[in-house]
Amino acid sequence: MLLIALVIYSAWICPFEFAFLIYKQDALFIIDNIVNGFFAIDITLTFFVAYLDSQSYLLIDDPKKIAIRYISTWFIFDICSTVPFQSLSLLFTDHNSGLGFKMLNMLRLWRLRRVSSLFARLEKDIRFNYFWTRCTKLISVTLYAVHCAGCFNYLIAERYPDPKRTWIGAVEPNFKDDSLWNRYVISIYWSITTLTTTGYGDLHAENPREMLFDIFYMLFNLGLTSYLIGNMTNLVVHWTSRTRNFRDTI
Amino acid sequence: MLLIALVIYSAWICPFEFAFLIYKQDALFIIDNIVNGFFAIDITLTFFVAYLDSQSYLLIDDPKKIAIRYISTWFIFDICSTVPFQSLSLLFTDHNSGLGFKMLNMLRLWRLRRVSSLFARLEKDIRFNYFWTRCTKLISVTLYAVHCAGCFNYLIAERYPDPKRTWIGAVEPNFKDDSLWNRYVISIYWSITTLTTTGYGDLHAENPREMLFDIFYMLFNLGLTSYLIGNMTNLVVHWTSRTRNFRDTI
Amino acid sequence: MLLIALVIYSAWICPFEFAFLIYKQDALFIIDNIVNGFFAIDITLTFFVAYLDSQSYLLIDDPKKIAIRYISTWFIFDICSTVPFQSLSLLFTDHNSGLGFKMLNMLRLWRLRRVSSLFARLEKDIRFNYFWTRCTKLISVTLYAVHCAGCFNYLIAERYPDPKRTWIGAVEPNFKDDSLWNRYVISIYWSITTLTTTGYGDLHAENPREMLFDIFYMLFNLGLTSYLIGNMTNLVVHWTSRTRNFRDTI
Amino acid sequence: MLLIALVIYSAWICPFEFAFLIYKQDALFIIDNIVNGFFAIDITLTFFVAYLDSQSYLLIDDPKKIAIRYISTWFIFDICSTVPFQSLSLLFTDHNSGLGFKMLNMLRLWRLRRVSSLFARLEKDIRFNYFWTRCTKLISVTLYAVHCAGCFNYLIAERYPDPKRTWIGAVEPNFKDDSLWNRYVISIYWSITTLTTTGYGDLHAENPREMLFDIFYMLFNLGLTSYLIGNMTNLVVHWTSRTRNFRDTI
Ligand SMILES: [K+]
Ligand SMILES: [K+]
Repeated sequence: MLLIALVIYSAWICPFEFAFLIYKQDALFIIDNIVNGFFAIDITLTFFVAYLDSQSYLLIDDPKKIAIRYISTWFIFDICSTVPFQSLSLLFTDHNSGLGFKMLNMLRLWRLRRVSSLFARLEKDIRFNYFWTRCTKLISVTLYAVHCAGCFNYLIAERYPDPKRTWIGAVEPNFKDDSLWNRYVISIYWSITTLTTTGYGDLHAENPREMLFDIFYMLFNLGLTSYLIGNMTNLVVHWTSRTRNFRDTI
Repeated sequence: MLLIALVIYSAWICPFEFAFLIYKQDALFIIDNIVNGFFAIDITLTFFVAYLDSQSYLLIDDPKKIAIRYISTWFIFDICSTVPFQSLSLLFTDHNSGLGFKMLNMLRLWRLRRVSSLFARLEKDIRFNYFWTRCTKLISVTLYAVHCAGCFNYLIAERYPDPKRTWIGAVEPNFKDDSLWNRYVISIYWSITTLTTTGYGDLHAENPREMLFDIFYMLFNLGLTSYLIGNMTNLVVHWTSRTRNFRDTI
Repeated sequence: MLLIALVIYSAWICPFEFAFLIYKQDALFIIDNIVNGFFAIDITLTFFVAYLDSQSYLLIDDPKKIAIRYISTWFIFDICSTVPFQSLSLLFTDHNSGLGFKMLNMLRLWRLRRVSSLFARLEKDIRFNYFWTRCTKLISVTLYAVHCAGCFNYLIAERYPDPKRTWIGAVEPNFKDDSLWNRYVISIYWSITTLTTTGYGDLHAENPREMLFDIFYMLFNLGLTSYLIGNMTNLVVHWTSRTRNFRDTI
Repeated sequence: MLLIALVIYSAWICPFEFAFLIYKQDALFIIDNIVNGFFAIDITLTFFVAYLDSQSYLLIDDPKKIAIRYISTWFIFDICSTVPFQSLSLLFTDHNSGLGFKMLNMLRLWRLRRVSSLFARLEKDIRFNYFWTRCTKLISVTLYAVHCAGCFNYLIAERYPDPKRTWIGAVEPNFKDDSLWNRYVISIYWSITTLTTTGYGDLHAENPREMLFDIFYMLFNLGLTSYLIGNMTNLVVHWTSRTRNFRDTI
């Protein structure tokens, strides 16, 4: 449970740091390393947790077999997503906040597979209501997509050489001096305006780089919204079938 | 029946008063108190109406049991949604039309649970056509969402310190001198443009406060439109299955 | 068949004349009266066509019974939709092209019930492919909605006292001098931009009257698009079930 | 397999050449003719490939019968889509890059029927996952529609007499001097903004010709998006039915 909360926290903070925070603040830096510590503990724990063999349905607790299975599957990814690249970089170089190191940080998103597998398990668990599990999943995916797209789009605008030819700069020329909160809200606003296909057009791509990002985001949205509607239809059909059956039995 | 009409009236007037009417007009004030009177009567009546026990399926008419059941469930909410806070405030303070008292007025929306339970009952009632009951429900929910969002968005614009940096002020700088009807139409127009995801963009959020409201409204819309489409699909499938069966039997 | 073509023609021309043609051109006037003539013949013919009694399943050819049945149901509407009000008005008054007479002309839309009943019959007719009948129906309804909304919105703009504060006038101040074709294209363009919820926003409501029309049109669109998607889902499900069955049988 | 790749290549390059390349570059010209060569070989090969008679279920390898069948069905179209019209035109006239010859080039799109029939076969092939085959098909169709619409819309803008009254010229007056990549990105950006019904409105039709094209594209989009959502719903319903069955069996 704690681990899931930490995963959600790092999944949310990761694109945010990537896009909005140029120099990592001290408080965040410490929290980040504590979170990393927890994941490191989790990796070591995995070596001592027995697993269920998918073929023989036996519980295997031989440490050697567990280690082989884990190393041959997800060990490398788990390690990569835990190594504190930025802390390491501080040892070797001086205050380096380049795009490269930030990108290595994005490897932390690998941790999201835990959330994904959690939902898969929850859906099969009959103790939980199928309807609400599914809804929570869909809402989480949507909100996370909105958050990520907002952050990346902001990053593209900030890195663009001419600030006035960016989606945010065309409306607020001095956006870089704006407060963090305002910049985040405007990014999320743009993101959700595009995701819901409302598209007011007050904020829109100004240069080919942003257009390219928008193209991929909109294509993704087309898929996501159809997926949402498909799921909603599915749930509505099953939801109303109860009332319908009740009517038919009378 | 009368009570349902009163509920609909107060649900509609409540956000409208909240947003558009700074000083409560006399006529409205009187109507409001009459409506409150009806609900007060309804609350007292509930103490004398027998109810069906959900476990033993017996009709219980013991006044004590009825009172215990009612007080332990919805009594407090019903009372809160009926107390005429504004009238009381007039007794103690002078012409106070602050946001606080207005917010207490929003408790009246609690009355909507009656409409909700009415629809639940109608859907199970085989004397009514399922298709039309469902349609009416969906249309009511949509219209009410449009009305509420329009009113709240107007309120946000009106309370913003700089009138020219609001969604409505950017188009009509002197919107506060406009007629009530025009302001209501423009609010509903914005609201429905966003809900249907048409998003012309002639009216759009200008400050972070409005953006935040828009974000939540658009997220809600995404859910609502998928829900509408899901329901429509469900109804179409059942509707056409008749024609299809007719074709198959020939 | 000829009658259906005439119905489609008059359904299409009716809102078009209403909105775009101030003085009825001679050619159109003559065609209109010829079409009216055909419908007058059809009304008289109905008195001599036997009908199938819905209760006894007998073919009734007694002229009296036919007449009673017809007059008691749709006779009045059929007459109203055929009377050439404009021609009559020319006899009594001089070149009167007021809004009132034009509105009477809209009664001709009553003829559309023939198309509606035709589709209902076609869907039950197993000689025709269900998929294509349904598609044609949906496309016709969509196109007709687009056509009507475009025409009415143009009419609202034309009748507005200040031409520059209209949706079309804000973009093209001298739109009234534009060619008929251009004005029709721009109306249809606005109409379809709104119906598909693309909403570019280059043409948008400028005054409360247009906003009110847009509100109703968008609400209607919300219903129509959900209906279209619902039908499409229904058709896709039945279409793919064949391929799926084919796969399952192997 | 190679042929499919070539079909995809020529389907993609065909509208692109048509819209963006005024004078055919040498490299492209040679590649084009090589691709044509492959298709010419394929046509000749078809005369020697036995086919399965759809009535007797016998494999027919009589060259005469094969030739008759092929010539009477698709031979003419296949030939037309392979003849190198532009090379021929160079023999007779001098550097002619008129619209007419380019249009003849569009006949190459006939080759797409191969892709269409490939997908039909794949869906019926149980060795392939139905879900992914269907998804790939839908994504291909969507991307191809976006590509084609972007190219044609650019062509309309380029051929319009007044460059400033075009959808692209209103934003970038000197768009004709822009790099090929930028012009392609902006076209695709417009195309996808319209297809997903986001409709920012930063790029929109400026003249009746573009409006007419937009009308047809938006109508097509309405159909395509409903089709996508319908398919997605279908897939979600079948996808989740597994989890649901798993829950019901416990
Ligand atoms: K839109
Ligand atoms: K828009």
